Amino acid sequence: MALLGIDLGGTKLATALFADDGRILLKETVALENRKGEEVGSLITEKITNIISSANNDERRIASVGISVPGISHMSGGTVWAPNIPGWEDYPLLSEVKSVCGSIPVTIDSDRACYILGELWQGNARGCRDAIYLSVGTGIGAGIVINGEILRGSHDIAGCIGWMAMQRPFDGKYADCGCFEYYDSGEGSSKLAKAFLSEDSEYDGELRHINPESVRSSEVFSAYDKGDPLAARVIGLCVEYWGMAVANLVSLFNPEKIILGGGVFGPGLKLIPAIMKEAARWAQPVSINQVSLEASGLEGDAGVYGAGFLALKNLRDL
Amino acid sequence: MALLGIDLGGTKLATALFADDGRILLKETVALENRKGEEVGSLITEKITNIISSANNDERRIASVGISVPGISHMSGGTVWAPNIPGWEDYPLLSEVKSVCGSIPVTIDSDRACYILGELWQGNARGCRDAIYLSVGTGIGAGIVINGEILRGSHDIAGCIGWMAMQRPFDGKYADCGCFEYYDSGEGSSKLAKAFLSEDSEYDGELRHINPESVRSSEVFSAYDKGDPLAARVIGLCVEYWGMAVANLVSLFNPEKIILGGGVFGPGLKLIPAIMKEAARWAQPVSINQVSLEASGLEGDAGVYGAGFLALKNLRDL
Repeated sequence: MALLGIDLGGTKLATALFADDGRILLKETVALENRKGEEVGSLITEKITNIISSANNDERRIASVGISVPGISHMSGGTVWAPNIPGWEDYPLLSEVKSVCGSIPVTIDSDRACYILGELWQGNARGCRDAIYLSVGTGIGAGIVINGEILRGSHDIAGCIGWMAMQRPFDGKYADCGCFEYYDSGEGSSKLAKAFLSEDSEYDGELRHINPESVRSSEVFSAYDKGDPLAARVIGLCVEYWGMAVANLVSLFNPEKIILGGGVFGPGLKLIPAIMKEAARWAQPVSINQVSLEASGLEGDAGVYGAGFLALKNLRDL
Repeated sequence: MALLGIDLGGTKLATALFADDGRILLKETVALENRKGEEVGSLITEKITNIISSANNDERRIASVGISVPGISHMSGGTVWAPNIPGWEDYPLLSEVKSVCGSIPVTIDSDRACYILGELWQGNARGCRDAIYLSVGTGIGAGIVINGEILRGSHDIAGCIGWMAMQRPFDGKYADCGCFEYYDSGEGSSKLAKAFLSEDSEYDGELRHINPESVRSSEVFSAYDKGDPLAARVIGLCVEYWGMAVANLVSLFNPEKIILGGGVFGPGLKLIPAIMKEAARWAQPVSINQVSLEASGLEGDAGVYGAGFLALKNLRDL
């Protein structure tokens, strides 16, 4: 018996076949290559059809399918909203996938939900009942597990932590993405660097020689590593906001673990002790001593592992 | 069959006997009169013993007991931490109550959990599966229900929203109570009034004639109602923070309802439209349109109703 996990991203599709103990039997990734709308749906159903038909022994017979999508999975209607895939405002993914799966059960959930499920199953949150994945990349989101179950909310859009209000008064620049995401996503650190560059005419470090319109968070981290003072200001402010966000998750949810992951947290992982120190100033003082803050154990594979665990949860009451 | 709900506060003990449809059959309140430690435990067990023994017909036979405590109910050990009751750092309330209840089941939970359970059962959150009670009084806390169940966290201290970080940089004055509680509890509005009085030497409104060391939130609200400009500054800032807190609950939990209650929200209820307007600037824009912000339907009785519902939930899978 095998589990099929599918992780749809904004630019690629990863599929993996898992044994029920989490071993990967097969894994592959294909680029979306500007596919949109039904083309993306067809790519997914073709993949599933091929994998099901090539299951040539009992170990590889697909017992359940889980799918991670970069957006919202509407549980009641089985449709998906995925802002980075053109034509997926309300895409009927569940019915399409079911049409090729026959009697094999299918579950679809958001990428942030799958990240924490992946970490629970095979990553750094194994054994936890209450854990949170804080994903910081192009955007910011949180996958939240409470007593073993994903927090969905009344309409499947819980965990939108990028919208967290952390600095009054309200500023119109927060309106498109939320206050926390404005400052602390990959784009956020780029925007901060750009703003500090325009303020600080005396600065002549290495970020001065990058076009301020296109400075990337990885360049800010690289300059920070070399002791650049402007990069240190940017990263210092990011650490403050990350610490406040971690504190707020701790005070509200009293979790066992918070896992940090996403594109920005590749270079940012060395900041975990500083983020924890900042969080400890703000958080409920008993609760902060009951949590551990850790890096993702699965990195870019968290989504596909989570999709595999979705498939397994659908078979068993985990 | 009847349900016994017990609401222990910092200064009084309320008991109510409920029919399983929520009708109150009997209700009384006694002052704690400086009782402490085991004296408070004895008061509770005496009340329960009397009510059980006077259950002289089938309608009043106690089938289940629920208790609301002003602090933390540790589910694993059955002990209670209640900061306002001397000697209740780790009080063995469950075993004491069980010793007089025989085979009648007993459940203990925190006051903030009971407030939202009361509203779910008989108040303004009836029919909701995802709802939050934001309690603003001497302190600030949140009772959070997710898919019908109380959010407890890994060690029973979830919902400590008074510690929410909302204004960087960190200031040592937040260390004892949390940033949100510093500004927005009953004490918070008093502290703000005091601070604004000392800054604004030209102000000669009615709050000037109150001893700034002892100005109360009710006096600030009263002056606000009369158009006092200093009170308007205090309340304006409070509304900003309340709006940000509501926004953060909406973005993280995607609830159907947020109920505002607690001592400060008696006079503060007229501010609900202003709080909602502020929240809408900050929150995830889809989620904010899926929530309604309402006053408590039970006011001071939310805790005892919640204790009654705890008792009922213990009998049935609600």
